[in-house]
This record gives sequence, structure tokens and C-alpha cells, in this order.
Amino acid sequence: MRVIKIGGNVVDSVERRASVLDAIATNGLPTVLVHGGGKLATELAERLNVPQTLVDGRRITDAETLRIVTMVYGGLVNKTLVAELQARGVNAIGLTGADGNLMLAHRRVHAERDYGFVGDVDAVNVALLTMLAEAGYTVVCAPLTHDGKGTLLNTNADTIAREIAVALSATTETELSYIFEHEGVLRDVNDASSAFVQLSRAQAQAYAANGVITAGMLPKLENAFAAAERGVRRVRITRWDALDGGTLIV
Amino acid sequence: MRVIKIGGNVVDSVERRASVLDAIATNGLPTVLVHGGGKLATELAERLNVPQTLVDGRRITDAETLRIVTMVYGGLVNKTLVAELQARGVNAIGLTGADGNLMLAHRRVHAERDYGFVGDVDAVNVALLTMLAEAGYTVVCAPLTHDGKGTLLNTNADTIAREIAVALSATTETELSYIFEHEGVLRDVNDASSAFVQLSRAQAQAYAANGVITAGMLPKLENAFAAAERGVRRVRITRWDALDGGTLIV
Repeated sequence: MRVIKIGGNVVDSVERRASVLDAIATNGLPTVLVHGGGKLATELAERLNVPQTLVDGRRITDAETLRIVTMVYGGLVNKTLVAELQARGVNAIGLTGADGNLMLAHRRVHAERDYGFVGDVDAVNVALLTMLAEAGYTVVCAPLTHDGKGTLLNTNADTIAREIAVALSATTETELSYIFEHEGVLRDVNDASSAFVQLSRAQAQAYAANGVITAGMLPKLENAFAAAERGVRRVRITRWDALDGGTLIV
Repeated sequence: MRVIKIGGNVVDSVERRASVLDAIATNGLPTVLVHGGGKLATELAERLNVPQTLVDGRRITDAETLRIVTMVYGGLVNKTLVAELQARGVNAIGLTGADGNLMLAHRRVHAERDYGFVGDVDAVNVALLTMLAEAGYTVVCAPLTHDGKGTLLNTNADTIAREIAVALSATTETELSYIFEHEGVLRDVNDASSAFVQLSRAQAQAYAANGVITAGMLPKLENAFAAAERGVRRVRITRWDALDGGTLIV
């Protein structure tokens, strides 16, 4: 299986989106595509005059913001990707974590801050993913989970990709690719060709300590290392036009 | 199998919605729940200053309105129903017609009027519905289809319920219930207890001709008669608190 995560910088670009979807259509591997959709949610919130608070890049999710991300992530972005994959002959099926109980989560408890309707994943319905993959369906997963008590929760897409890849790895050899705007994790942010070919946790810690790897990369790297350490066969951080390239996490 | 269609007057009411979802949770039949969601889409369009045109109760769907209904029907309403069913122990999975190619449609061609991104259904993926039902999933279907070329289309929920029930009937005995705010098709709109127990097409035509049945009921009745004539075992038009009551279409 292959889990591919695309963020807002890919979702928002027709060209980048097409590049990733074309690659999924020509690659034969059963795929789970996990998407974000940040900018569109921010735009809708602005048009509706719903103020947004971001802390370390995470969206504080009040009730009105939950409605917005449910509409944008679960509706607009998810169904656009599904329809575009269908046009490429890929039988895509779009799900949130509530659908088929795909991802059960609990509302985040944090000592200092109330993140609102933000969920941390407790369980992934691997049987559903396996059944759909065996029947030839490609799952497109929105960054929403649920608490099993009727409430949807906003969950970081990088984390969802990690949790799905780890859960699949218990029974199936699984690859995980984090797709973003750079060729990989860069040694020099001003040099697009400076991507590390591979990176271990020890190396990353050393590069982070001396400032070569910037703070903004650390959450993504942490998800990538955690996935590799929890049994995901291959983990990459790479660009939208090179799904098999980029920085390999070792 | 059982196909239940709920309109905006049920979706918008916490009490009515709970009544229908409780009935689905306690009833053992494999169910496909088809929903509308009219008022919420109209409200969002107003907040976004997107003018809406309704012709005979149908929404003319320009590109911006398509984005709105994709967000509201495919996202907010669909995922709210799914999460609320999950809270009742029903393993619901929410789909649009693009998901798993559930409903392939073509953009409506009309001599006098451009309905915009409105689709008429050509094919239903019965294999997907059957696989999900056999695996214990309850499908929640949004009133959106796709053209297979990357474009989502807005499709009337009554029609979707009819097409799904007819398609299922080819292999499985299927019931179809149209749920709305009255006890059934009323003989007298001012008398809530005047619902017909059963109604044939000939009777309905006679009652429509002399004004007993109002024009507003005719599209729903037409869908109901077409479903019965095309092989759906039992078709009802009934109220949200009496899924097995109401007017039986014969």
C-alpha cells in the first residue's frame, strides 16, 4: 500500500494537483491519498467573518470553524480530488474519519490551551481500508476525525497520514510520502537542489541543533520518524513532481 | 434493502433528524439514507452574497453555487448525519455520487433554460452499495453526482433516492420511503389526519385534476410512481416519526 499526503500548497495549485493525481493514476499501487486544505478554509472563514487563531500552524477550532473545515475539507477539497481522480480512471472514494468509523479520535486535552474541536487519533479502521483497496477503490482521506459520540474533530493531515500508514503496516508493507513544495528536506533553504538524500533521527537532531534544519520542518520530520520507527517500510518527504524522490527517512 | 430520503425540513430540525436516525439505528434493515439540505445551502449563499435562482423548487447551479452545495451537502450535512449515526452505533459511511463512482450523471440539457451544473443520473454503482451493505455499513448519500470527467453535479435528492432504489431492486427486494413533514399525501392540506392510506397513479391524476392534490406534491409523487413502476417493492410517502406509515404508493 502507499499513503500519500498532500498539503494546501498542492491542493491549491491546479498544476501541482494534476501532477500528483496523474502519478497516482499511472502508478499501480493501492493508494490512500490524505489531503489538507488550509488556505481555502482560511479564505472561507474570512468571507464569513469568522476570526481564525493559528498556534504553531495549528488551527484553534471553535464550533463555527469546525463547520467551516467540515465544509471545506470534507466537502469541497475532498470531493474535488475524488472527481478529478475519477476523470483519470481512478475509482476514488472520499472519506472523513467519521465515515465507516475510519478514524476514531478524542478531543485534545492540553494543560495550557484549549484547541477546541481538535482530535488526536486513537484507532484506524484497517478492515475498511483493506476491503476498499481489494475491491479496487482508492481512498481520499480528509483531515477530519470523530469522537464516536456525534462530534467531528479537526485533525492534522500529516498526523492522519502517519496513523493510517502505521495501522496499514501491521498487515501490509506500506510506503508513506509527504508531498510538499521542496525537493526534500533542504540543507540550505535558498538552494532547491540541496535536499538530503536520506536522513536519520540522530542526523536531523544534530542539523536542527545547529540551525541547518529549520523549526518549521520539525513537526513533519517528527511524524516521518515516528512512522518509520512504528513499522512503515519507506517514508519520504518529497516534491509534488517526484513521488519516488526526495529525502528518504531512515 | 431500504432507501430513506429526508429533505431539508428533517435535516434542519434536531428533533426530526434524531427521530429518523433513531429509527434507522433500531431497524435491522440495511439502509441507504439519501438527504437534501436546502436551507443550509441557501443560508451560506446569502452569507457569501451569491444570489440564488430557484425554478420550480430547483436550484440553478452556477460555478459558485456548485462550490456551495459541494461544501454544504457533501461536507456539512453529510458528515453531520454520519457522525450522528456513528453515535447511535450505526457504522455509517457518507458518499456523493463521485465517491466510488456511485452515481454517474450527465449535465442536464434543456431547450429553454440552462440549469448550470445540474446532473441527471445515468448509472448507479450497485456493486459498491451491495459490498458496503454486506460488510455492515449504512450509506449516507448526498445529492451530488459527477460526470466522470472531473465535474461534480447537483442532483435532486428525491431523484437520487428513486434511482438508487430502482437500481438495487434489480437484485434485492427494496423499499423506498420519502420522509417529509406530513403524515402522508393529504386529502386536505388543512387536516393533518387526512392522509391517503394508499394511492395509485390513476387516483393521483384524478385528485390532481380536481385540485385535491396540490401542484407542489406532483414531482415527489412522480418519483414515487416511477420507482414503484420500475420494480421497487414498496414505496411510501410519510412523516419523520412514522417510517412504516404514511401513504403507500400502489
